[in-house]
Amino acid sequence: MKGTLDAKTVAVPWEKNYSLPIDALVASGADAIYLANPNAPTGTFVSPAKIAELAATFPNLILIDEAYADFGNDNCVALVKDHSNIVISRTLSKAYSLAGLRFGYAIAQPQVISEMVKVKDSYNCDAISIAAATAAMEDQEYARRNWEHIRAERTRVSAELKSMGFEVLPSHANFVLATVPGGNGKQTYTKLKQQGILVRFFDKPGLQDKIRITIGTSQENNALLAGLKELTGAEKAA
Amino acid sequence: MKGTLDAKTVAVPWEKNYSLPIDALVASGADAIYLANPNAPTGTFVSPAKIAELAATFPNLILIDEAYADFGNDNCVALVKDHSNIVISRTLSKAYSLAGLRFGYAIAQPQVISEMVKVKDSYNCDAISIAAATAAMEDQEYARRNWEHIRAERTRVSAELKSMGFEVLPSHANFVLATVPGGNGKQTYTKLKQQGILVRFFDKPGLQDKIRITIGTSQENNALLAGLKELTGAEKAA
Repeated sequence: MKGTLDAKTVAVPWEKNYSLPIDALVASGADAIYLANPNAPTGTFVSPAKIAELAATFPNLILIDEAYADFGNDNCVALVKDHSNIVISRTLSKAYSLAGLRFGYAIAQPQVISEMVKVKDSYNCDAISIAAATAAMEDQEYARRNWEHIRAERTRVSAELKSMGFEVLPSHANFVLATVPGGNGKQTYTKLKQQGILVRFFDKPGLQDKIRITIGTSQENNALLAGLKELTGAEKAA
Repeated sequence: MKGTLDAKTVAVPWEKNYSLPIDALVASGADAIYLANPNAPTGTFVSPAKIAELAATFPNLILIDEAYADFGNDNCVALVKDHSNIVISRTLSKAYSLAGLRFGYAIAQPQVISEMVKVKDSYNCDAISIAAATAAMEDQEYARRNWEHIRAERTRVSAELKSMGFEVLPSHANFVLATVPGGNGKQTYTKLKQQGILVRFFDKPGLQDKIRITIGTSQENNALLAGLKELTGAEKAA
């Protein structure tokens, strides 16, 4: 597969239950590994201990995209101190509700950041976005309240989905990936859309029997659950 | 010369008095021409009529960077209607005093913009910068007052510089390029810096006897002129 700037990219599949394929990743001989953790769209999480094991074996750079980390219970920031080959990227688009701000940052050892700065555009992010991002990160109380809400609602929605016959992967993100009872993800997506409820359907191998549901406000989540109940009821009646 | 993404770049020199080298530009056979108008660091301006002549002869794209256009008396926006090969780029960093916002835009015929959108990043500028840029552009009265100030001060500073023996190019930008009487631009730059006055010196062929002075507030311009007078006096006394 050809990527941007003609870099060669190789996809290494997850092991069973989305566990980290350490041997296959090392065997890839890649110059860099890109790993989303929590992963999207599964919401699954690889423990820092497993990633430390990879970082000790794999000699090159490992970029861990922690876009969804604040919705989980753990993250890999502490690994940076001992592993010069780990770079963590974060965004304010998810956990700080600032998708319109387009603001992100990276965490790595100083010498790694120095090398990144060499190829960085000479202009920084715009001054207003820096001020807004800083203010958002300083208000941890507000942010944590949101994350707690997402976690509580994620638990509730997952339990309700299971009671309706969905299989739900344990999620560490602000969404859940659910296998629909009938196995037809696209149909469920379409019927929910007709009710004005938007979920994500991915027309890709391994995802065609699934929908990804983003956890919203309690009212939004109730609307989704009611919509799914209506669908299930309608199917039973048909 | 190799540029970004291995594109080949060719520099076509200005004709005498910074007039547009139409024949040489057409003869370059380039896929695209990049032209700053007003030009930096000279501040000189090519008339829309001359650029229309180029656009009618040169078959490929002409990108006109109008970063400084609002400080001049004319611009090429009206040419876009008749010339599908003209793209105009603007920034809010200069004429709207919003360098920290990193906001720019382009003007071209719809089918050209459509092609540009195809290779544009899927995310737009951040929402706050769009709101701030829109508000700034809507307040034309405030912006025009600033431009008038710059033009008036540019005229005053140019006249004063000439009276001190500097040669000054007629500028359509918010700076003037001045040839220092002694011919040593670097020395003038350094001595002004020792006084806490920053101008630009370009250590490049054709620019070593010059400094570029940005027009500031009246007080800043007075400080610069006083600083130069002190230098001239000191040199005369030495």
